[in-house]
Amino acid sequence: MRGNVQKILVVGAGHMGQQIAVQIMKHGLNVIVHDISQANLELAKKKIHEFVSELNFNVTSEIKSIDTDCDLVIETVIENIKLKREVLAKLNTVVNKDAIFVSNTSDILPSKIAKYTGRPELFCAYHFHSPLYGANIVDIMPHRRTSPDVVKVLTSFTRTIGLIPLVLKKESPAYIYNAILNSIMDKSVELVLKEVAGIEDVDKAWMGNTGMKIGPFGMLDFIGIDTAMHVTRIRAKKNPLKYIGVAFFKKYVDAGKLGIKSGEGFYKYPNPKYLDYDFLK
Amino acid sequence: MRGNVQKILVVGAGHMGQQIAVQIMKHGLNVIVHDISQANLELAKKKIHEFVSELNFNVTSEIKSIDTDCDLVIETVIENIKLKREVLAKLNTVVNKDAIFVSNTSDILPSKIAKYTGRPELFCAYHFHSPLYGANIVDIMPHRRTSPDVVKVLTSFTRTIGLIPLVLKKESPAYIYNAILNSIMDKSVELVLKEVAGIEDVDKAWMGNTGMKIGPFGMLDFIGIDTAMHVTRIRAKKNPLKYIGVAFFKKYVDAGKLGIKSGEGFYKYPNPKYLDYDFLK
Repeated sequence: MRGNVQKILVVGAGHMGQQIAVQIMKHGLNVIVHDISQANLELAKKKIHEFVSELNFNVTSEIKSIDTDCDLVIETVIENIKLKREVLAKLNTVVNKDAIFVSNTSDILPSKIAKYTGRPELFCAYHFHSPLYGANIVDIMPHRRTSPDVVKVLTSFTRTIGLIPLVLKKESPAYIYNAILNSIMDKSVELVLKEVAGIEDVDKAWMGNTGMKIGPFGMLDFIGIDTAMHVTRIRAKKNPLKYIGVAFFKKYVDAGKLGIKSGEGFYKYPNPKYLDYDFLK
Repeated sequence: MRGNVQKILVVGAGHMGQQIAVQIMKHGLNVIVHDISQANLELAKKKIHEFVSELNFNVTSEIKSIDTDCDLVIETVIENIKLKREVLAKLNTVVNKDAIFVSNTSDILPSKIAKYTGRPELFCAYHFHSPLYGANIVDIMPHRRTSPDVVKVLTSFTRTIGLIPLVLKKESPAYIYNAILNSIMDKSVELVLKEVAGIEDVDKAWMGNTGMKIGPFGMLDFIGIDTAMHVTRIRAKKNPLKYIGVAFFKKYVDAGKLGIKSGEGFYKYPNPKYLDYDFLK
């Protein structure tokens, strides 16, 4: 392991991979972005150049050709445990043995994928929240075998790239904020399903009391209703009552209402009602 | 029932009764504040005069002597169902029959006390959130027999006094915001009890992600840990697992750590750590 993280390989050039690469580059460190899709990489290049013009970054679609001498590998492929295992195992064969590996995951416990890295003591979960600009938290979730030194290096690295490290004491589904957020979403959906209150009323109650500019259903539109359905389905395995939440989200997803990204979810975009000046009147 | 609410009787001169009286007077309406304790009334008078100098308010400790000709009675005595029933029944004997009665309650369903008012169709729950200044929500929770006209009058009255009315479609414990808040508190306490994260880490995760200036444990200090324990105990009857939450709060309460009001709770006041400039660094 190397204490001073200078060269970072970001694996996956999607939405999160791009943001992470930009955040790191803005703080003067070197980044290589890898994706198996050349098309994704071209898109990512364009996006990244909107935010940073520096040359301390490179892309590669051929994992064998990666400059294997790096300090940290940040895996950001989609939330599929099989795919993450495959990608980590492949990376282990080409990247130097002393590089720290982390997975950006919101659902998967690090112990479930650690052995595929070939370096479990140098591995943990490392969770970025989107959008990543401004004051933002990164959750560092070690598993039982993660070396305490790795946690130290990642804590320091997180600060170096301008973010707030939050170290969990042990593995736990959904970290801290997402665990709390899930319980907010569950209760909000329950109030609507029980016909105690409408969607807008729930958001008004939340916004009026907290002073936040968005309520639970506005947040769900931001997260994506398809993503909310996916996460709720995973959690429903432990609590079958949650399948009513899955069914609630499914109606929207089947109608193509995925939230901000599809132009409509619980609200219509780009001018959702909750941003109206008089929403709380 | 009178559509135009001009004269209001506030019953109970405690923390909430005082704030409610001030809010109404600031908007030019007439208020009488009643409390059985002359000492409470003297304190309330002082407090109220800090905020408003108008003369459109009076106090009375003798319920028989109340100017019974009023449009609206707001009952704000402590959260004890027996006491609320007694007070409402007594008020029914002295107040004109066409006055609307409301109870400021966070826990008690209106159907459980409606018949004691002698005018169930003119009664509902009407819940103020503390502190009451600024943008703030008032929950209007009718029971099955509440007249829709009463809900209309209260909705309009709420706007008149500068607050945001939120009408619930039916009775439900803890309204909207408090129901969501309870689930946040449950999850936050669970994360600490399972030793996933410390108290400050939970607040950091919340504050860093939402942009709010206070986290769940800071909010608990604000609410009062004794109040949180009381509410959790009531809810524990339906979910015995919540007794671990009661036990968690009890340790603080037994140590005299009730939150802001006692000078210490999860944080020390008047300068709690979460207000430090570098709390999120």
